[in-house]
Amino acid sequence: MSGTLTEKVLEDHLVEGELEPGEEIGIEIDQVLTQDTTGTMVWLQFEAMEMDEVQTEIAAQYCDHQTYQFDFKNTDDHRFLRSAAGTYGAYFSRPGNGICHNVHKENFAAPGKTLLGSDSHTPTPGGLGQLAIGAGGIDIAVAMGGGAYYVEMPEVVNVRLEGELPEWATAKDVILEMLRRLSVKGGVGKIFEYTGPGVETLSVPERTTITNMGTELGATSSIFPTDERTEEYLAKQGREDEYVELAPDADAEYADEITIDLSEIEPLVACPSMPDNVVPVREVAGEKVDQVILGSCTNGGYEDILPAAKMLEGREVNKKTDLIVAPGSKQASEMLARDGWTAEMMAAGVNFSEATCGACIGNGHVPASDSVSVRTFNRNFEGRSGIEDDAVYLSSPEVAAAAALKGELVDPRDLAEELGDMEAPGFELPDVYDGSKADLITPDEAVDDELVKGPNIGDVPLKGALDDEVGGETLLKMRDNITTDHIIPATSDILMYRSNVPKLSEYTLSRVDETFPERALEADGGVLVAGENYGQGSSREHAAMCPMYLGIEAVFAQSFARIHKANLFNFGIVPLTIDQETYDKIEQGDDIHIVDDIGEGVRNGEEEFTISVNGEWEATAHLDASQRERDILAAGGKLSWTKEQSLGDGAAPADD
Amino acid sequence: MSGTLTEKVLEDHLVEGELEPGEEIGIEIDQVLTQDTTGTMVWLQFEAMEMDEVQTEIAAQYCDHQTYQFDFKNTDDHRFLRSAAGTYGAYFSRPGNGICHNVHKENFAAPGKTLLGSDSHTPTPGGLGQLAIGAGGIDIAVAMGGGAYYVEMPEVVNVRLEGELPEWATAKDVILEMLRRLSVKGGVGKIFEYTGPGVETLSVPERTTITNMGTELGATSSIFPTDERTEEYLAKQGREDEYVELAPDADAEYADEITIDLSEIEPLVACPSMPDNVVPVREVAGEKVDQVILGSCTNGGYEDILPAAKMLEGREVNKKTDLIVAPGSKQASEMLARDGWTAEMMAAGVNFSEATCGACIGNGHVPASDSVSVRTFNRNFEGRSGIEDDAVYLSSPEVAAAAALKGELVDPRDLAEELGDMEAPGFELPDVYDGSKADLITPDEAVDDELVKGPNIGDVPLKGALDDEVGGETLLKMRDNITTDHIIPATSDILMYRSNVPKLSEYTLSRVDETFPERALEADGGVLVAGENYGQGSSREHAAMCPMYLGIEAVFAQSFARIHKANLFNFGIVPLTIDQETYDKIEQGDDIHIVDDIGEGVRNGEEEFTISVNGEWEATAHLDASQRERDILAAGGKLSWTKEQSLGDGAAPADD
Repeated sequence: MSGTLTEKVLEDHLVEGELEPGEEIGIEIDQVLTQDTTGTMVWLQFEAMEMDEVQTEIAAQYCDHQTYQFDFKNTDDHRFLRSAAGTYGAYFSRPGNGICHNVHKENFAAPGKTLLGSDSHTPTPGGLGQLAIGAGGIDIAVAMGGGAYYVEMPEVVNVRLEGELPEWATAKDVILEMLRRLSVKGGVGKIFEYTGPGVETLSVPERTTITNMGTELGATSSIFPTDERTEEYLAKQGREDEYVELAPDADAEYADEITIDLSEIEPLVACPSMPDNVVPVREVAGEKVDQVILGSCTNGGYEDILPAAKMLEGREVNKKTDLIVAPGSKQASEMLARDGWTAEMMAAGVNFSEATCGACIGNGHVPASDSVSVRTFNRNFEGRSGIEDDAVYLSSPEVAAAAALKGELVDPRDLAEELGDMEAPGFELPDVYDGSKADLITPDEAVDDELVKGPNIGDVPLKGALDDEVGGETLLKMRDNITTDHIIPATSDILMYRSNVPKLSEYTLSRVDETFPERALEADGGVLVAGENYGQGSSREHAAMCPMYLGIEAVFAQSFARIHKANLFNFGIVPLTIDQETYDKIEQGDDIHIVDDIGEGVRNGEEEFTISVNGEWEATAHLDASQRERDILAAGGKLSWTKEQSLGDGAAPADD
Repeated sequence: MSGTLTEKVLEDHLVEGELEPGEEIGIEIDQVLTQDTTGTMVWLQFEAMEMDEVQTEIAAQYCDHQTYQFDFKNTDDHRFLRSAAGTYGAYFSRPGNGICHNVHKENFAAPGKTLLGSDSHTPTPGGLGQLAIGAGGIDIAVAMGGGAYYVEMPEVVNVRLEGELPEWATAKDVILEMLRRLSVKGGVGKIFEYTGPGVETLSVPERTTITNMGTELGATSSIFPTDERTEEYLAKQGREDEYVELAPDADAEYADEITIDLSEIEPLVACPSMPDNVVPVREVAGEKVDQVILGSCTNGGYEDILPAAKMLEGREVNKKTDLIVAPGSKQASEMLARDGWTAEMMAAGVNFSEATCGACIGNGHVPASDSVSVRTFNRNFEGRSGIEDDAVYLSSPEVAAAAALKGELVDPRDLAEELGDMEAPGFELPDVYDGSKADLITPDEAVDDELVKGPNIGDVPLKGALDDEVGGETLLKMRDNITTDHIIPATSDILMYRSNVPKLSEYTLSRVDETFPERALEADGGVLVAGENYGQGSSREHAAMCPMYLGIEAVFAQSFARIHKANLFNFGIVPLTIDQETYDKIEQGDDIHIVDDIGEGVRNGEEEFTISVNGEWEATAHLDASQRERDILAAGGKLSWTKEQSLGDGAAPADD
């Protein structure tokens, strides 16, 4: 594997490791993006690092998931995010300005740059030759602080495109075809690199539909080379100077190759309830459709909605079907309105919504019971729409518009034949993207210079460097297989406090022992003891952050779940393994102290530490950690480590 | 009091009583409207009457409060309402088509007709000379079944308008001036009739802003005479044939008279947190504004938003202020889009929403903590916006747009002077209202012919005629001052079942005794005993409906709250008063039976009934009821009574 476009961009940004699949590499991040449901914690973590300004070339904060602001906590989050962007030098995209991926594509996505975003569809700008990866909140905060992003080097797979899409077939059908072939697990540990003569037949918005939904393959990212189409798109967005020519070497070696003949693509749908449950529309034609929604980061662009608008012009939505259009960005909304398409769609019976993620995350326009919804989104996981037992189909805008007109699933080619006067709308870019930028507040225009925190936004405490002495009372002795749901329940009544660590901490391990949070706070430090597989389940950072807040210094377990163990390092809690005999012998309430100098031991690669229990007996605990994990732990967690490194580097403020 | 316009319309529709203030009158209803939060129960009640079709000239079902469909129960409600409208011959306005009052005004409001609606702002079409009154759900169901509407004859007050509004002063300021003078209680038991030379200076949309918000005065209704402006408006809506000339007699006598000189009106605001807390904008100028919302049934028309759009054109919303525009109807949205104003507003930084009641009922765009919101709505009761301790100002669209531009409250005259190039936008009607009617499904176009009930939509049981024998076990003996909140709690976790009487009934009186609902169902009939003032509090019909569902046949109390007692009649439960001695002597579990033939006694005006307790001792219970209430009770409740009357009349199906 060598000479791929992916490797070229990575090489440009490599700060640690080698580009061998499976090896950990550290890369420099040029741009970061966050959205409103993940952004609050990112900024609270950034605040905890006590830096003055973001260190990346561009940091952009979007408000897209909660634009409807159903709860004052949403609005407070937006208010806080504006203040954080202003205080630390990020762009702020106001609620209603659109979905992060769309607005980022329009304004910032640039060939050859790296982008890290706290949203799983961050790879969208891969369609412009940007290497974009989704990551957890702390990774974004660290990147904003100037830290590298660490990831296992993925395999690079060549997706060779041949031919040209026929009428009524779309980029959405290309990525649905990928999902049909490879399944939702088919991209794990991989980056898909699109090549071949078919690339030049696709415009940038079509390419970004493919890279956006590459996430559903489980891929780390997806990327296209750049060409005249890329340059043309950037020019239409007024950013032609950001064009860079990027292509793999002619003799690039890939880990695998897939060929897709675009000329054989036909209108497809993903049936309920998995994005890879893909069949040709004709196979499910006749299924009655109650609701259709156009929009999302996958198909919410001006060019995506335009074909549907053309199909709807002069016609009426079926009276049995509700059609909602939620553009992906204000730019799209404004241009559709200016060109008269919004009025045409409304006349046809469209309910025209704010630019929002909205229904795609079950936020508004939840389907009715026992109903069918067709959406141009990227995910149809069961219940994601907001109702159990939902029946959500994923399709192109053309298939969705056809369903809205007929009131049932229909191949748009068949509908066109039936109607006689409906031409294939094609896919065209406007002459220029001339939407206003009134809702994108630049760092120079910032209207806040200090953080504004509503009552539900707390602080994130930063841990200092690892003490020489670690230990304390065994506040809880737990059994095997304690999950992250035990540590911090994910029910909505509790997760509403995700931006409020002090409040959220009141629920820590309460499903194991409801007296624990109060006891931990009173004890002012202590340790946890658990059996096998401690921390299995989700990647939730709060499952480490809340114990840290409560003063937990170490966890002694017979074994740890992989991701939770990484989170313990990230939040400065020492994860040590103990054997069965030691586990059996320890009782809740015992005082456990590490006899050795733990700070020095962690830094110097020590793997064994002696522990003393009640000063009465001793045992051995093991630390299994890479040098980077040891450095992070010794510094007091990832944020402290980044802060330390940044101060050490004397990092300059970011250019805006 | 004689010769008023109000009396003329009432006389045309009078079926019972005399037009004496304070006397109960029965009037025929020509049109009814319901919306989505009240409509489900209306249709369930209509279903219970087992009629084939609505009997009014026009019945219209709108979906406006819950257009965002945050919960599948909202969408299920909309699905049910469409099916009910189709099944029973009503118009159905799809979610997104707009607010009931706006869409009704555009399509159906007609001079001289009566309108009854299950929404408090039903008086809106008074601006076209329609006599429109808001009422409870059961009154609407009864009216749809052909029954008369009973109301105490209000006093008619003459509001004499003189002069003409100066630049920047609006109809909204006129009704705010009324509120400033009269307070939110100033209209109780009254109908405001607007007269005088100032009337002809106001267009219909201006008049309907005034009649709409007359509700905030506590008025039964508000009405304008008709004239060329009315005819012109109807013609622009394509309904000139519905014009009727209506005016009070020259020598009409009014109960009271108020004079407003329009030429002295200036831009006003209602300060937090009451619509009558009105001051000139200049008095509160400088107050920082975080959020501005244009829309609602008061100021959501094309003509209302147009002035704001003109003010925003070529300018930008202050970066510290969010501006949301939610038009009152799809007609307004479509016309604003077609004329280019939507694009202009978006360019200025507007977040353009669906046509919805939305934020006006705390549904979306909830203000942030410690923030100020300026809205063109009609109510700013504390907490109504969705957050406690809110600070909501009510204003005209002009004042709201000025606040959005400057980021603080400012008299638009002062802002115009400051900017130098902002002209007074005036108030103009379009040449023609040419929005599509795709979202208004006529009875002929109906796509459903049977009811579709999601899992949260139950049935409303209908009670048969009053039995000769009434009585049973005393299932609960309660103290004084039991409220409707005790009977059916109003917390949102319980009220979400408002369309599901069987489910909601599980909470009946559970705050007094949580075993009651189950015991009542098991007992299959029984009675309640209470002290003084039973049923005080809200007008909630469920507080009678749920006990009826559980089989309660009679309530013996020392005294009853007035409205709850009326509800007991309406749902066929016998409300009897007992004296202190009898109350003291009865114990929970006692078997109480009415010795006399209760059915006959109720019909024949008997006021005293002998009760036998456990067959051991007797006492006297009193029935205080009008003949109409006795007829309703004897029939088994208002729905049964209406059904009985309708069948007796051999009523013909309604014309569509």
